[in-house]
Amino acid sequence: MSAGVSPLAPVETADMPEIEGLRIATAAAGIKYKGRTDVMMMVCDEPASVAGVFTRSKCPSAPVDLCRENVKGGSLRAIVVNSGNANAFTGRKGRETTAMTAVAASEAVSCKTSEVFLASTGVIGEPLDAGKFAHLLDGMAREAVPGRWREAADAIMTTDTFAKVATRRVEIAGCTVTLNGIAKGAGMIAPDMATMLSFLATDAAISPSALQAMLAQAVEPSFNSVTVDSDTSTSDTLLLVATGRAAARGCPVIAEAHDTLAADFRAALADLLLDLARQVARDGEGARHEIQVTVEGAVSDASAKRIALSIANSPLVKTAVAGEDANWGRVVMAVGKAGEPADRDRLTISFGEVRVALHGERDPDYSEAAASAVMKRQEVPIRVELGLGSGRWTVYTCDLTKEYVEINGDYRS
Amino acid sequence: MSAGVSPLAPVETADMPEIEGLRIATAAAGIKYKGRTDVMMMVCDEPASVAGVFTRSKCPSAPVDLCRENVKGGSLRAIVVNSGNANAFTGRKGRETTAMTAVAASEAVSCKTSEVFLASTGVIGEPLDAGKFAHLLDGMAREAVPGRWREAADAIMTTDTFAKVATRRVEIAGCTVTLNGIAKGAGMIAPDMATMLSFLATDAAISPSALQAMLAQAVEPSFNSVTVDSDTSTSDTLLLVATGRAAARGCPVIAEAHDTLAADFRAALADLLLDLARQVARDGEGARHEIQVTVEGAVSDASAKRIALSIANSPLVKTAVAGEDANWGRVVMAVGKAGEPADRDRLTISFGEVRVALHGERDPDYSEAAASAVMKRQEVPIRVELGLGSGRWTVYTCDLTKEYVEINGDYRS
Repeated sequence: MSAGVSPLAPVETADMPEIEGLRIATAAAGIKYKGRTDVMMMVCDEPASVAGVFTRSKCPSAPVDLCRENVKGGSLRAIVVNSGNANAFTGRKGRETTAMTAVAASEAVSCKTSEVFLASTGVIGEPLDAGKFAHLLDGMAREAVPGRWREAADAIMTTDTFAKVATRRVEIAGCTVTLNGIAKGAGMIAPDMATMLSFLATDAAISPSALQAMLAQAVEPSFNSVTVDSDTSTSDTLLLVATGRAAARGCPVIAEAHDTLAADFRAALADLLLDLARQVARDGEGARHEIQVTVEGAVSDASAKRIALSIANSPLVKTAVAGEDANWGRVVMAVGKAGEPADRDRLTISFGEVRVALHGERDPDYSEAAASAVMKRQEVPIRVELGLGSGRWTVYTCDLTKEYVEINGDYRS
Repeated sequence: MSAGVSPLAPVETADMPEIEGLRIATAAAGIKYKGRTDVMMMVCDEPASVAGVFTRSKCPSAPVDLCRENVKGGSLRAIVVNSGNANAFTGRKGRETTAMTAVAASEAVSCKTSEVFLASTGVIGEPLDAGKFAHLLDGMAREAVPGRWREAADAIMTTDTFAKVATRRVEIAGCTVTLNGIAKGAGMIAPDMATMLSFLATDAAISPSALQAMLAQAVEPSFNSVTVDSDTSTSDTLLLVATGRAAARGCPVIAEAHDTLAADFRAALADLLLDLARQVARDGEGARHEIQVTVEGAVSDASAKRIALSIANSPLVKTAVAGEDANWGRVVMAVGKAGEPADRDRLTISFGEVRVALHGERDPDYSEAAASAVMKRQEVPIRVELGLGSGRWTVYTCDLTKEYVEINGDYRS
């Protein structure tokens, strides 16, 4: 377990407003943790639009299978999340648990089971006993109230050291709507904990297909550009709910993802997702520095992203940042191993505003003192200019410290 | 720097015989290290056949560029290797250094520069001053004697904790030939040290094209199946030299890689390469356990290899082994993230002889005590059965310990 809160935690936690049409309840079911909440339920009294993106793992958890199926319907009435057990790699029993939970939730809110969405996070491979919390859902659905976003973020944490919340207000044709989001990290956190979960909701009125297209686009430069240790979880789940209640106040209904009326909303969605994704990176196990890897001048954006991920996932780059060492040779190595077009003799590398390598050699004006000063900051920007084209991407990660090994190398017992 | 010798070092170091037609000298040039040898020269008085494989990095070092060019000629008279400086990412100056060294070596042994092969290992990005050792080559070429293989292995070490040598005797049509090899590790060892180097020689008479084909095949299940931290160096170089002197004793000349007379030689080459590759893994930074990841039942060998590498490179699997934790959930995660065909509900996973998961669930007979006993061994075999086809591969790696982070996170200064 981590000791204390990450030094990279936000100084202030956002004040979370209500989202019209969505109520939240949390409960302590004692699934694994004692003395804290571990079940979270979101309820929409009217069917809401829903979009989702999920882990690319070929071995997804049972709840991911359920969400992937139900998101096709585009309609959501309830989300039920438990922490402490991921219900992953639990075979037939895992599917029975999700089925039983979906039935209990659908009865609690009087909806179809296809309108129920589930997520579980925690230990892998241990059967999850739905009996521990399914009986609570009826009461939770009744008692749920709007605005309990911070409590929701607390209930879904596993070994996160701080709750991750963010909110934005944005106008659609002069009508103000709200967008809230919560997340938990991060890249297979701590012993047996696996899952990045995030839940977003807005009162804007957006069709399911438009919502899905917007989410798929916004997730690329945010959650799909964050890595803690390159280990993709079996359970990653991101759901975006639009209650549509703003329509009653005269806000327009968005039916197409590229509707120009929704430009500001799309920007706010991208911004909020990046905010949450960076919070996840900054709460990576043992993190002491956030690393922002920007690759420019690649032959394409996709090529820039692959090179940036190669740098961000390199244990040698990450340990160098942990040691506050401006070790640009390891960045060269990570560029070289990415397998993407790169010309050694055109490479330019900077740490923050300090250029350390120019045209494939150490910068003639290189200052070890200036570079070292950058490495001592909480946020370390690494910038690579390839000089080949106009492809560009930024990836967010954290350093690799002894605490990471300690947290993940502890005996499970 | 590592403290002491790896606990996984071989108990006995092989006694290295001579290779007829090849002489070796080492010297202390003080390139970076004090009080030890740091230049190694191998000389063949008659042109020998040569084959080579090199890093796949898109940012290779200057010596790799030179070797790639010269190996096309298939003829070798000298190898010059220095430790302490990798001559990588050194731009025009780096190319001037390799050119100057090649000229000095060609004059020392009276051969063409195209018959000279170079390798450098050590710091990246610092200009290598050939003036520090080029003047020594003439004397080294004169004084070189056969049999100094152990001394050669010592001279090319950077932060390896033990010298890596291996030898085999094998018959070609009833005629005994010898195959020697040395290597240094490993996956970007220690602060700024980057390079896996290996040099093999035999007195067998084998054409350059046959030698290259044999090497390319034998390197796949050995050096191309070993990983320490997934970080490919800019300088990886493996050269195989055949002096052909055995022909004078009546050994047949092998002109085709698939010649049936060479079957035992091919097997010995594969065996020796695997021996050296495993020594490299066992001397990975901070290694306390060797991990052998075998994937079976994949749709193809290539798919099995990708899944095995995904497991072997997973920080969470490697930290679990460091913690002697039979954490099979992380193996599932690593199978899932490989992106290769896999069916969660058919997966069977074993640690050593202990089956921990069967058909996608925890094995009903799972014994934590039995699994934990396997994890305490120096060699930890992880076996995954996918149940899809007959593809199979084994990858060798080591665990990820706090010492790895310490070694690689130290300040360079």
